[in-house]
Amino acid sequence: MRNDKRLPYSLQHDVIARLDGTVLLVGDRRRLPFERVQLPCVDAYEAAAAIRGMVTQGGGPLEVSLWALVQTARINGCDIDEMRRAADALSSARPTNTAVRKELEYILPLIEDFQPSSFASDVEDLVMTRLDYYDACYDAMAHHGAALIEDGDGLLTTCFPEHSFFLSLYHAREEGKTFKVYAMETRPWLQGAHLTAPGLAELGYDSYLITDNMAPALVSMGLVTKYMSASDRAAASHWVINKLGTLSAAMACHEKGVPYYAFSLAPDMTGPDPAWSDVEIRDPSEVLSCQGMKTTSDSVRGFYPCFDLVPPRYVTAVVTKEGLL
Amino acid sequence: MRNDKRLPYSLQHDVIARLDGTVLLVGDRRRLPFERVQLPCVDAYEAAAAIRGMVTQGGGPLEVSLWALVQTARINGCDIDEMRRAADALSSARPTNTAVRKELEYILPLIEDFQPSSFASDVEDLVMTRLDYYDACYDAMAHHGAALIEDGDGLLTTCFPEHSFFLSLYHAREEGKTFKVYAMETRPWLQGAHLTAPGLAELGYDSYLITDNMAPALVSMGLVTKYMSASDRAAASHWVINKLGTLSAAMACHEKGVPYYAFSLAPDMTGPDPAWSDVEIRDPSEVLSCQGMKTTSDSVRGFYPCFDLVPPRYVTAVVTKEGLL
Repeated sequence: MRNDKRLPYSLQHDVIARLDGTVLLVGDRRRLPFERVQLPCVDAYEAAAAIRGMVTQGGGPLEVSLWALVQTARINGCDIDEMRRAADALSSARPTNTAVRKELEYILPLIEDFQPSSFASDVEDLVMTRLDYYDACYDAMAHHGAALIEDGDGLLTTCFPEHSFFLSLYHAREEGKTFKVYAMETRPWLQGAHLTAPGLAELGYDSYLITDNMAPALVSMGLVTKYMSASDRAAASHWVINKLGTLSAAMACHEKGVPYYAFSLAPDMTGPDPAWSDVEIRDPSEVLSCQGMKTTSDSVRGFYPCFDLVPPRYVTAVVTKEGLL
Repeated sequence: MRNDKRLPYSLQHDVIARLDGTVLLVGDRRRLPFERVQLPCVDAYEAAAAIRGMVTQGGGPLEVSLWALVQTARINGCDIDEMRRAADALSSARPTNTAVRKELEYILPLIEDFQPSSFASDVEDLVMTRLDYYDACYDAMAHHGAALIEDGDGLLTTCFPEHSFFLSLYHAREEGKTFKVYAMETRPWLQGAHLTAPGLAELGYDSYLITDNMAPALVSMGLVTKYMSASDRAAASHWVINKLGTLSAAMACHEKGVPYYAFSLAPDMTGPDPAWSDVEIRDPSEVLSCQGMKTTSDSVRGFYPCFDLVPPRYVTAVVTKEGLL
């Protein structure tokens, strides 16, 4: 297994997704940090179900989807219709984050030109190229992110901000900067508690886990000097869609004059601003338990719109591979 | 057991605190809604420890502390020094909410005049008088609260807003108004999930449990038309101290023009505005688990300032027994 010492276990490529013959092994983020296991998916439809079921999230579905195409090619050979059906299932697994859809729409036309004799290996080569491309994007974003971090900063983050944020911290530390990181636990799936905080501790950062409702208090107390998050979607107009908790933190920062930076691999440069109708509404039962244990009585109903829409006035800049937007 | 049908199980007087001989039975809110049990406390110091340990919270410590004085009188007879020591322990169990301290400072001088021959029963009579007084306050606040509720409202609340809020809903429903209620779960102790949402469901209100980080989204989506919470402390200047999550909800409401009303039994009419230094910092390990189950790896550290300070500009009005402040 390749190991990039700049990143925690959860963000190693082979942990996120790995193809073993025709079985796609998807790192099960739901069980981190308590168990390090991968969920075997026998085809792209099982992989799509894993994405839908939160086995992986954030940037995970992009890598899983790319490998699921290699898997489909290995199983079915040069069957473009099947490749398209698989891509559709993967793209539509979760509606809000459009990165998977954009990537698959980009590479499907390239795949259509591949020769039957070397189809699966050609698809694999293309996928490796695309993963290298994304790694280069993350590196570029991280250099811009690191430049934003100042010595003595208190950095707040939400959900699991993945490569761009972790690499930003790496570069900032390499540059001799010291900082604290506060990670919001991110209910109901606890990506902050399960992935971010353990990842920060694993890499030796001075870091603290907080509950989601605590972010505005920390900002008001003056402990937070920058807020940084990933984004499930961002627009050139500075609208950001990201996990619940982002709006609360961004509002509190705006109030206090603390900048908020959202990393985005590929912001929407055109098109309409996002609307609440773009936001996935998930099964309300997911808010009625924590780590599989019921939190309330059976008579209680839940409601679960699962992302925040952050208006431009709260967003200092969108950090892209080209720099600040 | 007396039963007030306007209130859920958790807010019945005999559930909150009940004296059985010299044993004080404190309703264990930590185990609701899953188990209905009371924790026996053999003296006021055990009662203070129960308050400190979150066995009861919000308005619970006030009733527990009053009964703990009766208990102390039953055990020790007319021993004013012991009454004062007990009162000190109860007052200082949790520093942020000053209601217990104020109440005990008010009644101790009255108790000092009681005759030794009927000391314990005189203390008990006084405590019953005070509980009746608080019930009358809650009723008065609830009439003001009910008047704020309009037909078709979407009401958001945080933590466990207790009598004032539940009675407001009762009166509003009696007046024929229909409304929805959204309860924030209130990590890390989940008072919203354990007490508020089950209480609302028990009384048949159209209600939904949400995670704390979801409140600004609901406000932005237009689902919330009023935000109402209790307050652990409020000032005439409209500063409100209340459970984490209040600031986030209040900011989002302010942004959207949605009013925020905080109930307060006894706002501070004079004195300095509250400061973050007034806010209790609890054991950080409490944010690292949920319902006793670890949420993160052992290497992760937590941080837990446990109340929000809400500045006056986000507070539409403080609702007192006299009306809106």
